Amino acid sequence: MDTHEKGFFTEENSVEVVIGRNANARDERLKEVIAVITRKLHEAVKEIEPTQEEWFKAIMFLTDTGHLCNEWRQEFILLSDVLGVSMLVDAINNRKPSGASESTVLGPFHVADAPELPMGANICLDQKGEDMVIHGRILDTEGRPIANAVLDVWQANDEGLYDVQQKGIQPDFNLRGVFRTGEDGRYWFRAVKPKFYPIPDDGTVGKLLGDLGRHPYRPAHLHFILKADGFETLTTHIFDPHDPYINSDAVFGVKESLLADFRRVDDQNRARELEFSGWFWEVEYDFVLARPQPR
Amino acid sequence: MDTHEKGFFTEENSVEVVIGRNANARDERLKEVIAVITRKLHEAVKEIEPTQEEWFKAIMFLTDTGHLCNEWRQEFILLSDVLGVSMLVDAINNRKPSGASESTVLGPFHVADAPELPMGANICLDQKGEDMVIHGRILDTEGRPIANAVLDVWQANDEGLYDVQQKGIQPDFNLRGVFRTGEDGRYWFRAVKPKFYPIPDDGTVGKLLGDLGRHPYRPAHLHFILKADGFETLTTHIFDPHDPYINSDAVFGVKESLLADFRRVDDQNRARELEFSGWFWEVEYDFVLARPQPR
Repeated sequence: MDTHEKGFFTEENSVEVVIGRNANARDERLKEVIAVITRKLHEAVKEIEPTQEEWFKAIMFLTDTGHLCNEWRQEFILLSDVLGVSMLVDAINNRKPSGASESTVLGPFHVADAPELPMGANICLDQKGEDMVIHGRILDTEGRPIANAVLDVWQANDEGLYDVQQKGIQPDFNLRGVFRTGEDGRYWFRAVKPKFYPIPDDGTVGKLLGDLGRHPYRPAHLHFILKADGFETLTTHIFDPHDPYINSDAVFGVKESLLADFRRVDDQNRARELEFSGWFWEVEYDFVLARPQPR
Repeated sequence: MDTHEKGFFTEENSVEVVIGRNANARDERLKEVIAVITRKLHEAVKEIEPTQEEWFKAIMFLTDTGHLCNEWRQEFILLSDVLGVSMLVDAINNRKPSGASESTVLGPFHVADAPELPMGANICLDQKGEDMVIHGRILDTEGRPIANAVLDVWQANDEGLYDVQQKGIQPDFNLRGVFRTGEDGRYWFRAVKPKFYPIPDDGTVGKLLGDLGRHPYRPAHLHFILKADGFETLTTHIFDPHDPYINSDAVFGVKESLLADFRRVDDQNRARELEFSGWFWEVEYDFVLARPQPR
């Protein structure tokens, strides 16, 4: 029975035995991915030394997380988000050359068919919240304006809720819009100041956050997708640096370079020009798009 | 904004930032477990460098696996099994002193209320399969017989199916029984030779096995739980070393020390004594129970 001895599973050879079974995998990438996952899983188990009860709790956590997923809710993406995995995958897939704007996570609230609007339009359709004007340029890494760049923006309202979370309460496409730059690469539009909001915290991930002593909030932000011919598409946010959760985003989406300056402006003339009734917030932010990188 | 710089997530500091959020966790064990899981997950992602599409495939694999779990089926346990995690947890929780019998996985087919039977009983209730007699001793690590040890045995039939998988076809409690040793520590009972069988392979785990070029079979075995006052409970199998899948158990349950000798016996007198009609299989196997170990 000497032939058996090397092949059987032991605590010591566990990784080699399991990976060794996958010699005839359908493709090399799958084989590689499963090899890494197996090795890291076994390393984790050997370090944690879970009891059988702890192992079963983990099985039930995954099971309950799966059962919460449906057409409208993706609890495993939330889990990936709060463990920093989503941001890590984003970072790996969006390494930018020096000077280009940084990316962050897409999130679940983008809709594909938001209306294209004339520059300067007000995307707030229900007059609720604190007025805000946002403007800036879309540039290449040499500082030249990009014409015909498309800016797709979406944001929560002043209660931290997106239109799609309040169908019938907020107007359709409230706080969403698509804008296209001219030769000067400039963009501007009007909106309201967004508010922080919690990720869904009534499921397994919310319970885990609570057990870890963590809150479920994302600091106030605006979402953007920027597209232009000859450039890499950029999916990102800009954040309010004065938000109470700016240093503790539940999904780790904040980057230093994505902090914008939200200035409170008290200027009757400018308010009148912008058709605002009083003081307002002003944000100026330039986006820099990268040309496709060799990978 | 210097205070921000150290706190924000980057590809380089991802593990520290995520773990750093858990300073106020409910208990130290949870904090430790999540720290290890986070670190190993991030190591895996950094090594794999998944595309966004690959990450989403992983999310959907977990989601679909969760959706397959119900009162009768536990696809996440199957996943743990085929990645060797279940056997690793078993090994970590059942490190035995030298000379004691080794453990293996419990599996999903144990039932708690199998009947206690007189020594020598035939646990095969439907006369299907190849007759088998199993006997041996239950000993301590000094080789002394253990009296009043309880042996709980269950096995698949000659088609690789358990009674609970064929309600209404196999008799209730077919191929199950509980036996209690006397002063000599000896046990014996009659049964039929079990057959290899596949783990459920019509779900996400079966698809993964197929993609990895692996079969879903477990080699033929008998399950045992052995209990005796003053000894650690032993959950284990004995295996047929001539089974075609003995070197490739889909769940990695085989250990060298759990290979029994399944001898074919052609002896009219012994067959008559055992109330068998012709040739039969004989298995002799001694179990050695360990006293509780300091951990």
